[in-house]
Amino acid sequence: MELLKERIRKDGVIKEGNVLKVDNFLNHQMDIELFNEIGREFKRRFADVKVDRILTIEASGIGIAAIAAQYFHVPVVFAKKSQSINLDGTMLSAPIESFTHKRRYEVIVASRFLNPGENVLILDDFLANGCAALGLCEIIEKAHANVAGIGIVIEKGFQCGGKMLREKGLRVESLAIVDGMDAETQTIRFRD
Amino acid sequence: MELLKERIRKDGVIKEGNVLKVDNFLNHQMDIELFNEIGREFKRRFADVKVDRILTIEASGIGIAAIAAQYFHVPVVFAKKSQSINLDGTMLSAPIESFTHKRRYEVIVASRFLNPGENVLILDDFLANGCAALGLCEIIEKAHANVAGIGIVIEKGFQCGGKMLREKGLRVESLAIVDGMDAETQTIRFRD
Repeated sequence: MELLKERIRKDGVIKEGNVLKVDNFLNHQMDIELFNEIGREFKRRFADVKVDRILTIEASGIGIAAIAAQYFHVPVVFAKKSQSINLDGTMLSAPIESFTHKRRYEVIVASRFLNPGENVLILDDFLANGCAALGLCEIIEKAHANVAGIGIVIEKGFQCGGKMLREKGLRVESLAIVDGMDAETQTIRFRD
Repeated sequence: MELLKERIRKDGVIKEGNVLKVDNFLNHQMDIELFNEIGREFKRRFADVKVDRILTIEASGIGIAAIAAQYFHVPVVFAKKSQSINLDGTMLSAPIESFTHKRRYEVIVASRFLNPGENVLILDDFLANGCAALGLCEIIEKAHANVAGIGIVIEKGFQCGGKMLREKGLRVESLAIVDGMDAETQTIRFRD
């Protein structure tokens, strides 16, 4: 998605340790017009797939998923990262490890929001080591539902997540795949 | 907003301890069509107010704010609840206390996403004791920006937050104000 790559080149800031900061349009401040283009592109890429529900994970997936849902006309569920007293009923959970926050946590979805047999599209802002996406897949599997696909805004192609998920036979559509970046020169190399 | 009150009556579940669960349409599963009606209603209520930016707080405010922003044509910033290694630059923060999670935390916004003199509309899903809204007001004040108003989906009118904020001269628009609820009979009394 050229518009997105241009925006990453323009506003992305590369930090040491392979950190790509895109917080002025994606995951702290949100450019809702860009989100609409992203939502439209996800719909175009998954046009041949039956989608009954979108699943994402708090916090930065929520805005993307909410806007994208307008093109799919399905409800969105966002997985929570810690048990809350407002959550009850039967919960589905999976352990995941955060690269950004360097900690492990449980990701939780109320089982009544994922029905057996339905097709669930996973959407998220980043794909790096794939732990978050894998945790969401595990939850969908526990609900006896199907993973319709995984839509990612920015994939770090030099980390293992995308390869690992695709080798499992999952359909991963990443709108921009970063194959390399250099903090010193602030240059980014995208996969074509 | 009648559509919202009807939905709360139909799908809201009242728990002991004045907990109102609306997680099947508002803060776990999200009904994006309803969110669009909510966004439209916020725009109608704040039609006379200049809004340069929308500020909300993770996680459940994000979906509401993203959809509502489509009616205001402004960017959204969501405040974060804990320091992340991906956050840097000058940060604005305020301590807030969570009713739901029974703990204190810092709410954080990168200062470059709030400009001096601009008018910031706060949007959130719930207003109870008002601590989250007050924390966001404190951050806006630290940025030398102005609070354009506070838009809330569900206000718990029997808690002190709405009164406290209005007494400070802040304009609070709540789309549904719950004045009482009964867990035994599952009945909700709304303010007219």
